Amino acid sequence: MTIIITAFERSPDGGKGLARDTRVRWALEEVGQPYEVRLVSFQAMKEPAHLAIHPFGQIPTFEQGDFSLFETGAIVFHIAERHTGLLPDDPYARVRAVTWMFAALNTVEPAILELANTKLLEGDKPWTAERLPLVEDRLRTRLKQLSAHIGSADWLDGRFSAGDLMMVSVLLRIKSAGILNEYPNLTAYVARGEARPAYKRAFAAQLAVNG
Amino acid sequence: MTIIITAFERSPDGGKGLARDTRVRWALEEVGQPYEVRLVSFQAMKEPAHLAIHPFGQIPTFEQGDFSLFETGAIVFHIAERHTGLLPDDPYARVRAVTWMFAALNTVEPAILELANTKLLEGDKPWTAERLPLVEDRLRTRLKQLSAHIGSADWLDGRFSAGDLMMVSVLLRIKSAGILNEYPNLTAYVARGEARPAYKRAFAAQLAVNG
Repeated sequence: MTIIITAFERSPDGGKGLARDTRVRWALEEVGQPYEVRLVSFQAMKEPAHLAIHPFGQIPTFEQGDFSLFETGAIVFHIAERHTGLLPDDPYARVRAVTWMFAALNTVEPAILELANTKLLEGDKPWTAERLPLVEDRLRTRLKQLSAHIGSADWLDGRFSAGDLMMVSVLLRIKSAGILNEYPNLTAYVARGEARPAYKRAFAAQLAVNG
Repeated sequence: MTIIITAFERSPDGGKGLARDTRVRWALEEVGQPYEVRLVSFQAMKEPAHLAIHPFGQIPTFEQGDFSLFETGAIVFHIAERHTGLLPDDPYARVRAVTWMFAALNTVEPAILELANTKLLEGDKPWTAERLPLVEDRLRTRLKQLSAHIGSADWLDGRFSAGDLMMVSVLLRIKSAGILNEYPNLTAYVARGEARPAYKRAFAAQLAVNG
């Protein structure tokens, strides 16, 4: 049964690959599953037909026959569970990989989201110049801990997993900000993710829509 | 093998049950698994022994024999996977329950975290009075969508699941703020969670440490 995902008709980042459909595309490429894409406009995302499969009116979604899913973490987990390549076979290594998915999304990404909100939604506010360093320091706390964990390893826990896919995707959001470069091993970690053939195919596919 | 979790020696909320060990206690109570608690101080959380099991220096952690885990979402998922009571048997219903765990942690909680940071970390800043309504409105966007999804249902997707455990836990963080009361069905949803005997036991156990 064909896998259909949704993506922005026009991504706000203009093809930098930061919209979350790239994470799902990447997961599907890693496990070698073909997929089709349905593009949705900002307006259509808030309409009943889309809200029926995504209560928060966002992209991406995942559909296969009658089954549908939303929430990037859950979609990547579902793909990883049903195909080989994103989760280890050993049950304990497997739950540790899932741990890193949750850590990427609930421990690292909220600090990155707060920085993004500061710049995108409050960039014109009188307080932002003074407030920005506070927000950056909160993010640094997390990046420093992550950097200490990775050390000189290639990936978070042994071989590349869905946990790395998610963590690299989250860190890519701050690649263009100088802050990531303060942690050379994180910069190298992100570059290793981007160098994977599956990531390159996913990136190219989203760029073909948005470039 | 005994399950050992970690919790704050002294929770910053003074026993309101908002520290994340309550989520793990609740999950263990729902599935009827006994556990022991090791209390850790703020200082000990940042020391090598704790960082070896939690790279971000937080609580809770989960240990059972030689196996250890961090990240609340992953711990609850691990408990839910290995015991009956928190995930449906049907594989599609199961992944939908996991979806709501991710939605609670990555779509709803970041907006709540931003509000918490505004009040706790920036409460004394000159911009906070003017900025707070913007942050609250970003949270309202999510609460409104969640409220529309729940409608008159008791739980997010059929029977109570780990997804509800996580969503109720996330919403409890804003129970004392007026904002949750703007959505009566969410207030009722949270109250249904709090009324569960397993939640009550978890709450009482953390209160015994922090009250």
